[in-house]
Amino acid sequence: MSYVHGYDDRESERLHDQAGALVELLHGDTSYPAGARVLEAGCGVGAQTVTLSARSPKARFTSIDVSAESLAVARGRELPNVELRQADLFTMPHETFDHVFVCFVLEHLPDPVAALARLKTMLRPGGTITVIEGDHGSAYFHPETAAAHEAIQCLVALQAAAGGDSLIGRRLYPLVRDAGFEDVRVSPRMVYVDGSRPDLIDGFTRRTFTAMIEGVREPALARGMIGAERFDAGIADLHRTAADDGTFSYTFFKAVGTNVVEADDLAGSGASFGD
Amino acid sequence: MSYVHGYDDRESERLHDQAGALVELLHGDTSYPAGARVLEAGCGVGAQTVTLSARSPKARFTSIDVSAESLAVARGRELPNVELRQADLFTMPHETFDHVFVCFVLEHLPDPVAALARLKTMLRPGGTITVIEGDHGSAYFHPETAAAHEAIQCLVALQAAAGGDSLIGRRLYPLVRDAGFEDVRVSPRMVYVDGSRPDLIDGFTRRTFTAMIEGVREPALARGMIGAERFDAGIADLHRTAADDGTFSYTFFKAVGTNVVEADDLAGSGASFGD
Repeated sequence: MSYVHGYDDRESERLHDQAGALVELLHGDTSYPAGARVLEAGCGVGAQTVTLSARSPKARFTSIDVSAESLAVARGRELPNVELRQADLFTMPHETFDHVFVCFVLEHLPDPVAALARLKTMLRPGGTITVIEGDHGSAYFHPETAAAHEAIQCLVALQAAAGGDSLIGRRLYPLVRDAGFEDVRVSPRMVYVDGSRPDLIDGFTRRTFTAMIEGVREPALARGMIGAERFDAGIADLHRTAADDGTFSYTFFKAVGTNVVEADDLAGSGASFGD
Repeated sequence: MSYVHGYDDRESERLHDQAGALVELLHGDTSYPAGARVLEAGCGVGAQTVTLSARSPKARFTSIDVSAESLAVARGRELPNVELRQADLFTMPHETFDHVFVCFVLEHLPDPVAALARLKTMLRPGGTITVIEGDHGSAYFHPETAAAHEAIQCLVALQAAAGGDSLIGRRLYPLVRDAGFEDVRVSPRMVYVDGSRPDLIDGFTRRTFTAMIEGVREPALARGMIGAERFDAGIADLHRTAADDGTFSYTFFKAVGTNVVEADDLAGSGASFGD
């Protein structure tokens, strides 16, 4: 399932490009105050950690991942205010954080609400959770072709077979709410690319989205999901949308929820709301 | 083709609701200076004209439509700075305007570039065109069902059979550029609806989008595009997305282009750029 985790160099490179091109869109409104203790759950190779920690230089991040290989890549980065730790969210010792940040993680989990509920137990009263996910069903483009959508569908099906959901972005609102968070606010972050935006043509259409779909060629063919010729035609069609007269649209979703605790629960705890 | 034009009362009501809920999203960045002469091409029942003229009270609008019935509805509105005129874009006498505004019109035309090029001839040098269109292929939601997409596809197919393209939003950039406009800038205007936005659940998911799809029941069934039971299931599924744990996404596209004229063409004309 190498397409899911991002261990290899090419995948690391892709995730890094993506983080570069989309930083402002995804992270622009996230910063944590001095001294805040923030848990980043599922940091992977640290693609988001770089931005997260740089935007909140006086917050203290604990970035966890189950994969030692991913963490090894992350350790190669400049992350002065981050403690990288190999840990599984569900079995790590209990600890309380002011805020939690989760990006491109829930899409891989068979029970995202359970993960969110577990994260809620690690938040102080009044603490917030921020969740960012993509939604591969939000991709549409010009020119449209059936082959391009069939190639995309290979990734969707592989992720589903691995227990994930790559159409999860549109579901963030009910998921975060079902986990018990309140004041849940979801905002879409749409990437729209046309001939007037060559940086996004290269950084997003080609090197992020199309590269990601190209990355599932081997497992998709191995499982007989699609023929090689058809898959390659779909990839060529995706590259065609990167021409000067093509367009490409994709939407990420960002949710923020609060761990509101009832007044009764707080009696004598000395906990306070807000930062 | 009554679903295309919006003559009847129910359709007028729908277009009016839509204008109300989406005014800020679509029109927020459009206003014209005092004295500017603005052509609104294809004003229909005046659903956009109301907002357009109210936001630029000192501009002078000429709003044209081919349909006397639509104009009769528009004449019932408060439009102090608007001259409503029954005219066909391609045959109306030549006249020059400072700006042109076209909303929800190109989707119905077999040759949108020809219409845009014709509009360009009616613009002064340096004048702008503003185009707003939807894109029914941008609709996705939770829960997703095949029946809902099949019902939507009926409208797409009917519009295509009538020579239009209800997936035109994503193509605005190449279309406006192909018509000869320069400095073309397209921005998506995404409507995202979840349980925290009851006004949009009612105003957009139910009363705009789902009502629009419901409106093609009769022609879709008459043409044998879909069975009655399946269509109704699709509509029920669209209403289901309006529940508290559902979500709905749709994107409009807005393009602005400029009628740049080469220095040679301007020699001795006394025309100046900008307002």
